[in-house]
Amino acid sequence: MVATEGRPAPKGESLTFDLSTYLKQRQAQVEAALDRSLPLTYPEKIYEAMRYSLLAGGKRLRPILCLATCELVGGTLEMAMPTACALEMIHTMSLIHDDLPAMDNDDYRRGKLTNHKVYGDDIAILAGDGLLAYAFEYVATQTQNVPAHQVLQVVARLGRAVGAAGLVGGQVVDLESEGNSDIQEETLTFIHTHKTGALLEACVVCGGILGGVTDEEIERLSRYAKNIGLAFQIVDDILDITATQEELGKTAGKDLLAQKATYPSLWGIEASKTKAQQLIDAAKAELELFGEKAQPLLAIADFITTRTH
Amino acid sequence: MVATEGRPAPKGESLTFDLSTYLKQRQAQVEAALDRSLPLTYPEKIYEAMRYSLLAGGKRLRPILCLATCELVGGTLEMAMPTACALEMIHTMSLIHDDLPAMDNDDYRRGKLTNHKVYGDDIAILAGDGLLAYAFEYVATQTQNVPAHQVLQVVARLGRAVGAAGLVGGQVVDLESEGNSDIQEETLTFIHTHKTGALLEACVVCGGILGGVTDEEIERLSRYAKNIGLAFQIVDDILDITATQEELGKTAGKDLLAQKATYPSLWGIEASKTKAQQLIDAAKAELELFGEKAQPLLAIADFITTRTH
Repeated sequence: MVATEGRPAPKGESLTFDLSTYLKQRQAQVEAALDRSLPLTYPEKIYEAMRYSLLAGGKRLRPILCLATCELVGGTLEMAMPTACALEMIHTMSLIHDDLPAMDNDDYRRGKLTNHKVYGDDIAILAGDGLLAYAFEYVATQTQNVPAHQVLQVVARLGRAVGAAGLVGGQVVDLESEGNSDIQEETLTFIHTHKTGALLEACVVCGGILGGVTDEEIERLSRYAKNIGLAFQIVDDILDITATQEELGKTAGKDLLAQKATYPSLWGIEASKTKAQQLIDAAKAELELFGEKAQPLLAIADFITTRTH
Repeated sequence: MVATEGRPAPKGESLTFDLSTYLKQRQAQVEAALDRSLPLTYPEKIYEAMRYSLLAGGKRLRPILCLATCELVGGTLEMAMPTACALEMIHTMSLIHDDLPAMDNDDYRRGKLTNHKVYGDDIAILAGDGLLAYAFEYVATQTQNVPAHQVLQVVARLGRAVGAAGLVGGQVVDLESEGNSDIQEETLTFIHTHKTGALLEACVVCGGILGGVTDEEIERLSRYAKNIGLAFQIVDDILDITATQEELGKTAGKDLLAQKATYPSLWGIEASKTKAQQLIDAAKAELELFGEKAQPLLAIADFITTRTH
């Protein structure tokens, strides 16, 4: 994981951390764990539908954040892997339900047909329900070598992150704001801190809880996660516009088409980029007390502002 | 709760248990707990939608079974009340999603408009998701005076009861069997043991776990619950037909209209009644070792075969 392996790092010089290799390795571990987590059984149709979306690829950023934070505070990968899988099950459930005709009505996700286009709306609704329920069962039954009261805290955090106080609440305000490009910054921030931020925060905080975090550390980890979550969304909004310009207007930005308020539409692109960078800097500052061990989380924070898709 | 209060029961004569009073009292306690469990907050729309269905009445049989079993094995009402509420949240979620146009497409439930008719399909999907997530959060954060590893067992049982290995799996097979009146008894039993049976079993078993059940007792409680669950479904099927006959064919039974296979369609009405009674007798036999303390669960079992709606 350290590119300079074999020679001692000169004093004051940070070890070079190879994020790309780190992410690839973790992604492969997560893929294998997800594949094992949900075997096909009767009635096959629902398990196929759940597996279709759960194993549809993606960066697996959420589980990786959970695993990295658990290791950061002294835990092992094994302690956090069931929760890492559960976070991806929850994320997948939210994508399946968001894509439904009654919601965003999307036919494709990551180049593949959406769940309801393959299995029908009824099965897609049930596949989402099944994944959400299984996430909690999986954490409760599969977590090893962690005291039960810590696992219970994880269950509580996961529930809160996905419910009306988290993801579902953010989605509701997002739906209410549709077609209204005049919404306030406060509302936009509510949407993003809930729709994407709450689950990202749960990834980091649950990883910390499983690894045996202290109270002071948990607050810092929570602030780190909130900051990268908001930065992630701002960068998403910027990419939606700049990708459009590169394609010479052939495909207008989805947010513009939907007349959605975004950070760039409120602040302009340059100010949005500055804001994203400030959030990343603030996120990284929270991890100073962890020293070199924080390299994966620091590199992931930087990755958010430099990514191009 | 004992109608013969004031005089000792003659030897060999069972105390008369007033089920009606017992159910009314418990129902009122559950209603109050459910009302407190989910306060209205921003974004109000989703909490309103969740409360609309959660507080829409009903017999509250699931939470009452959970509370009764906890008390039976020596626990208190307080230990089981958060799980009792969670069971009703899960049951409500399944009703909201079942009623959606993409599923059973029902406009009314218990004489009230269904959730999606009032709030729209998008909010109804999210209200279900919110209730399901909150059920787990609520158990994890609100259960008092129960060791954490027992609460974790409850989380695992709830997750299994609602997911693809339970309710969701039963619903999928039910959807696949629609329009096919030629299905086998094995399939019909799978549907019912999963679609309604799994959650009823969880009610009883979780109540037992919270109250500190022994391993032998838990197996007995599980068999009690499975038997009353299947009897409940058989009686439902019988009522669907007999109600039709009483109304002189004006309204055909919903199951007949939908060409659904039912126990009476496989076995005939009389044999179905006999089978239901056998299941109730078997259920009650499992509770013998608990003695007089089992009166509420015994009376609830009898109530299932004698109910008329």
